[in-house]
Amino acid sequence: MFEFEGTDSEVGSIGADVDMTLTTEEILDAHVGGKLNVVTSVPLADARDLSIAYSPGVAEVSRAIAVDRSLTAQYTWAQRLVVVVSDGTAVLGLGDIGPRASLPVMEGKSALFKQFGGLNSIPLVLDTTDVDEIVETLVRLRPSYGAVNLEDVSAPRCFELERKLIDALDCPVMHDDQHGTAVVLLAAMFGGCAVQQRSISDLKVVITGAGASGVACANILLAAGARDVTVLDSKGILVPGRAGMNPVKADLAERSNPRRLSGGEAEALAGADVFVGLSCSTLPEHLLGTMAPDPMVFALSNPDPEVHPVVARRYARIVATGRSDFPNQINNVLGFPGIFRGALDAGATRITEKMKLAAANAIFAVASEDLSADRIVPSPFDPRVAATVANAVAAASDTP
Amino acid sequence: MFEFEGTDSEVGSIGADVDMTLTTEEILDAHVGGKLNVVTSVPLADARDLSIAYSPGVAEVSRAIAVDRSLTAQYTWAQRLVVVVSDGTAVLGLGDIGPRASLPVMEGKSALFKQFGGLNSIPLVLDTTDVDEIVETLVRLRPSYGAVNLEDVSAPRCFELERKLIDALDCPVMHDDQHGTAVVLLAAMFGGCAVQQRSISDLKVVITGAGASGVACANILLAAGARDVTVLDSKGILVPGRAGMNPVKADLAERSNPRRLSGGEAEALAGADVFVGLSCSTLPEHLLGTMAPDPMVFALSNPDPEVHPVVARRYARIVATGRSDFPNQINNVLGFPGIFRGALDAGATRITEKMKLAAANAIFAVASEDLSADRIVPSPFDPRVAATVANAVAAASDTP
Repeated sequence: MFEFEGTDSEVGSIGADVDMTLTTEEILDAHVGGKLNVVTSVPLADARDLSIAYSPGVAEVSRAIAVDRSLTAQYTWAQRLVVVVSDGTAVLGLGDIGPRASLPVMEGKSALFKQFGGLNSIPLVLDTTDVDEIVETLVRLRPSYGAVNLEDVSAPRCFELERKLIDALDCPVMHDDQHGTAVVLLAAMFGGCAVQQRSISDLKVVITGAGASGVACANILLAAGARDVTVLDSKGILVPGRAGMNPVKADLAERSNPRRLSGGEAEALAGADVFVGLSCSTLPEHLLGTMAPDPMVFALSNPDPEVHPVVARRYARIVATGRSDFPNQINNVLGFPGIFRGALDAGATRITEKMKLAAANAIFAVASEDLSADRIVPSPFDPRVAATVANAVAAASDTP
Repeated sequence: MFEFEGTDSEVGSIGADVDMTLTTEEILDAHVGGKLNVVTSVPLADARDLSIAYSPGVAEVSRAIAVDRSLTAQYTWAQRLVVVVSDGTAVLGLGDIGPRASLPVMEGKSALFKQFGGLNSIPLVLDTTDVDEIVETLVRLRPSYGAVNLEDVSAPRCFELERKLIDALDCPVMHDDQHGTAVVLLAAMFGGCAVQQRSISDLKVVITGAGASGVACANILLAAGARDVTVLDSKGILVPGRAGMNPVKADLAERSNPRRLSGGEAEALAGADVFVGLSCSTLPEHLLGTMAPDPMVFALSNPDPEVHPVVARRYARIVATGRSDFPNQINNVLGFPGIFRGALDAGATRITEKMKLAAANAIFAVASEDLSADRIVPSPFDPRVAATVANAVAAASDTP
């Protein structure tokens, strides 16, 4: 038995009209045979159809592409196909469970690409965790796809892998656990700031977790004008000179924590305006009381937020989680379908910082039409989101 | 303008009720955006659907597979997904046009897997022609798929590649240009023999072309009991000791050509009972007159048969081509959908010689219910074919 808690909580629920009780049996049943199917978009009912879609007619198309390679974009599915790539080393909160066990997640991601972004997507899971081998594999397969969504790759390998893929491939590449999360968090923070009539540049922000999403969230907040961001890993606050930091953390320590705080959560949260939890740990309630007045709490770990939203609400008006059964769900599906759609629509070969900021602004723009403390981001099912994000991302791309 | 010739020929046409005139424009139009789409088989309309298909519910499925890897077969699409793999080195009659230009063909193949075999299939085209790199790539991707259909890889590389893939992978692997063609040719030869009340073991068979399909056709005929098979490449008859033979041809020379013929088509065809053309060359008409009485002519090169069927019909009652606008179309689609379907249904890890022979017998069994000189194989659109082949192949597999 697998169940959401607190469905009818005092803070209300966007899922209040839906029974959110799920049984393991029901979940497994829904997965029998997998969640994806390939269908053909051309008729194959008679010899004439066959002669168009396959031999001999198809030779005309191959011949045309052989002469002008750019026609691949027009006459094949590949250039708009998103491959969801994982090695299964950091799957949801389950950790390194391997590529096979990661497949249901990757199929789900591909399904969301289609449902929310109108993009074809397939999972490619890899039986290697070697960064260079993964890059090499995707380079060899380059003619088969149009964009790479990296998913559930463990940190700090994920940073190196994404960087090397971006260098090696002439197509959009994004590690969604990093940048998708960061884009939606930034959009939510825009929303929270608008409700509270505050500016990101004035906020003291504390992020717990210096993995893929923690690092990316810190980076996008700094890029968006935040001046006081402090990041913690399991050993405490990232500060220059601290022991036990990998190069990514050491670099982030230099660029963040302007007051050069050291210590743990207590030292970081004292007087802070924003808590961003991306750590899969638990935040002691009493620390919420040490924050500055009217703080914002983003307790984003799934399925168990760092602090229960009902508890957080005692201290903060703006409370967000990753859960669908509470208000303000920080769900990556608000970001990645529109980001990739926009990049592919524009023919972009990179997903730049400018495009990510444009995506966050676009999500906020949709939310801002009906903003409140319990609605700082739009619903994932708001059909305007992906289209608005895609258009904004395409406009922000550097392609002509 | 691209057009079939001879649609209303004197030998009749299975496509006679269909207008087979195709324009380049019509073909290209049908390919805009490619021929495949991915769809999701689970609902994604509300938060509850999302919680089942994606986080948090999907974690239950991943957890189950992490504990028992065999559940991948039940709860993902991968184990029944056929990847159509090519490096674009021998595409149709177009040659080495590269992976991008091969994509329309591979998409078409994937479409046929779905339409005729009910199997999900995606193209994976590779930007390398190195056999070991292709093997390595597919080994790394092994958790992503359930079977490999090799397609349009040049000879003799294709023999080494298929052998190495079979050794490296614990799933069905088949180079369709070799074995799909061979299976359907053998079925057609069973049909022709039945019409003429002859036995394969008594026939003198001549095969022009010692590439992928020529070698495989020789091998399957020998396995099916043929005793006098002679194969030619562009330099002439394969005979032990001849110069200019790669190891595959040298091996085949030892096992074929029992009369140790040497020379060219004239020497091979004098008194022969069967001509099998797999050479993309032209057979001079006068040589047909030198064959034994009542010969069979399989002029299989596409789109231009070695000899026009109208011409061949002057000498032979049994005439087959690869074309859909003449009787007796030797079309691989009669074989591969059912072969892979049967192998996957049975959970087979290999496609054995026994399974290929079973497939040929199954195709013949469907044809034999209504056999004639103009119908030695069933129509590709006969819905009984794939099911009959799949059941026979599954029954012939060594899986428990």
